[in-house]
Amino acid sequence: MTADAYPDDLRRQVEEYLAAIRFVAAETAGADGLEEAMRYSLLAGGKRIRPVLALATARAIERDPAEALPIAAALELIHTYSLIHDDLPAMDDDDLRRGRPTCHKAFGENVAILAGDGLYAEAFRHVLERQAGEPAAILAAVRELASATGVNGMVGGQYLDVTDSAPRDAAGLRHLHSLKTGRLIGASIMCPLLLAPDQPRATIDSFRSFASELGVLFQIVDDILDVVGTDDALGKTQGSDERLGKRTYVSEFGLDRARELAAESHRNARAALNAAAPGGAGELAQITDFIYTRTS
Amino acid sequence: MTADAYPDDLRRQVEEYLAAIRFVAAETAGADGLEEAMRYSLLAGGKRIRPVLALATARAIERDPAEALPIAAALELIHTYSLIHDDLPAMDDDDLRRGRPTCHKAFGENVAILAGDGLYAEAFRHVLERQAGEPAAILAAVRELASATGVNGMVGGQYLDVTDSAPRDAAGLRHLHSLKTGRLIGASIMCPLLLAPDQPRATIDSFRSFASELGVLFQIVDDILDVVGTDDALGKTQGSDERLGKRTYVSEFGLDRARELAAESHRNARAALNAAAPGGAGELAQITDFIYTRTS
Repeated sequence: MTADAYPDDLRRQVEEYLAAIRFVAAETAGADGLEEAMRYSLLAGGKRIRPVLALATARAIERDPAEALPIAAALELIHTYSLIHDDLPAMDDDDLRRGRPTCHKAFGENVAILAGDGLYAEAFRHVLERQAGEPAAILAAVRELASATGVNGMVGGQYLDVTDSAPRDAAGLRHLHSLKTGRLIGASIMCPLLLAPDQPRATIDSFRSFASELGVLFQIVDDILDVVGTDDALGKTQGSDERLGKRTYVSEFGLDRARELAAESHRNARAALNAAAPGGAGELAQITDFIYTRTS
Repeated sequence: MTADAYPDDLRRQVEEYLAAIRFVAAETAGADGLEEAMRYSLLAGGKRIRPVLALATARAIERDPAEALPIAAALELIHTYSLIHDDLPAMDDDDLRRGRPTCHKAFGENVAILAGDGLYAEAFRHVLERQAGEPAAILAAVRELASATGVNGMVGGQYLDVTDSAPRDAAGLRHLHSLKTGRLIGASIMCPLLLAPDQPRATIDSFRSFASELGVLFQIVDDILDVVGTDDALGKTQGSDERLGKRTYVSEFGLDRARELAAESHRNARAALNAAAPGGAGELAQITDFIYTRTS
């Protein structure tokens, strides 16, 4: 198993699609600097795991991945917004992201707050203006996006993280991460399913189990990489969790046990995927393996 | 004409509805402090101009105002989010809002950023989960919300404002405010129209003219009040525009001319309203007069 097997054709589709998006309309004179800050953070590379998951899920249910590009882009806009706000001085106070100055370091704190706010709004606008599909199906997908990113999702998880408010046990840690990271990973898989008409309830449920397990796997590996990774490979400051006194799978369980948990979670995710799409989800399996074996 | 005539029955409906909303689900253990910060800012009183406009518009087109409560609430959640982020130290750095410490003063800057982010997400979730109507009509209304609050709306206007990036002429000032304030005021009128099936194009267009003029009126009066109001009546620090070196209708045209512009804008708004709803929009006329004559 090697991390080299990643669906790069899907990633290229995402990258080209994102690069072509313009946010600020010509008549909004003077806001070019806002566009620049948004694109600086959005087009900083990365594996594009969330939108690639969305396209791979579309293909796994025999839809054309290109149909899911608008919702896939929205997922990456939202992820980018969350990184910009998480990096702010009042939050994690990070100077580096993907090897470059963070948005507030490059453009100032006021512009960074607004670039995040703007990316979030434009994510909704983009799907609502561009996504093809039945109105009821689009509504269901956008509802999933809003729910996954609200106070019972990403924002709630970030609150628990920065204020150290989650219950201090393994369940509390798992819950924090299921909100902060897991819900958006999950939405990346669920949104294309909700957009496709007439998916059987059993299919949706089994994909939901896969999505949930994949979110856990992602976070355990993230915590391990914060300890064993290097600044160069991570493109951010290694050890920042420890510096911030954050509870992680490594701080709670130690590195060896965290590695065992990752292996277990990887097995669970692959099993859940097999149940969801027997034999027909090669790219989702690749992404699952990539998430497990990645080094940055 | 007196500011006493305000549709208080609609305001009470809004107030009761907002007070009953709970954001954080029981299973999101530990996030009570986030809920508290969101409700602290949301339930700080005020005239609730945006949601009351939405209910009054519903009534003007002979719909039950109660049907529009979910979208009306979303408008107020979004307005509250914008105030929290605008008040942040990196933005306008305000200590007082509606006579009480601003959200970041009361709860800390990290929680305030997340309370704003959370209110925006929950606004969308609330409409998408609660608003009754045809799926295509709900999509159109939510599209208006996203567009009005993105980089070609509220966030773009705030960017032009805090970075002083709008063209330095009267058109630039008007454009800045049409984005920062006008688009959300406009959405308060347009969303209930988009939710109601089968509105004639001419009706929608004439309401759009009214909405646009009302947004301008609101901002001119706001600028005047920042100069002539008192801290007590405003519930915020009077003169903050001048302190921040912001361009306003008063700084550009002087107080007397700004008052003339307000009177003109008020006449235009009433005329546009008459065209939109001949004889059938008493509450919208009341709100228009209130916006013109308010003292805080």
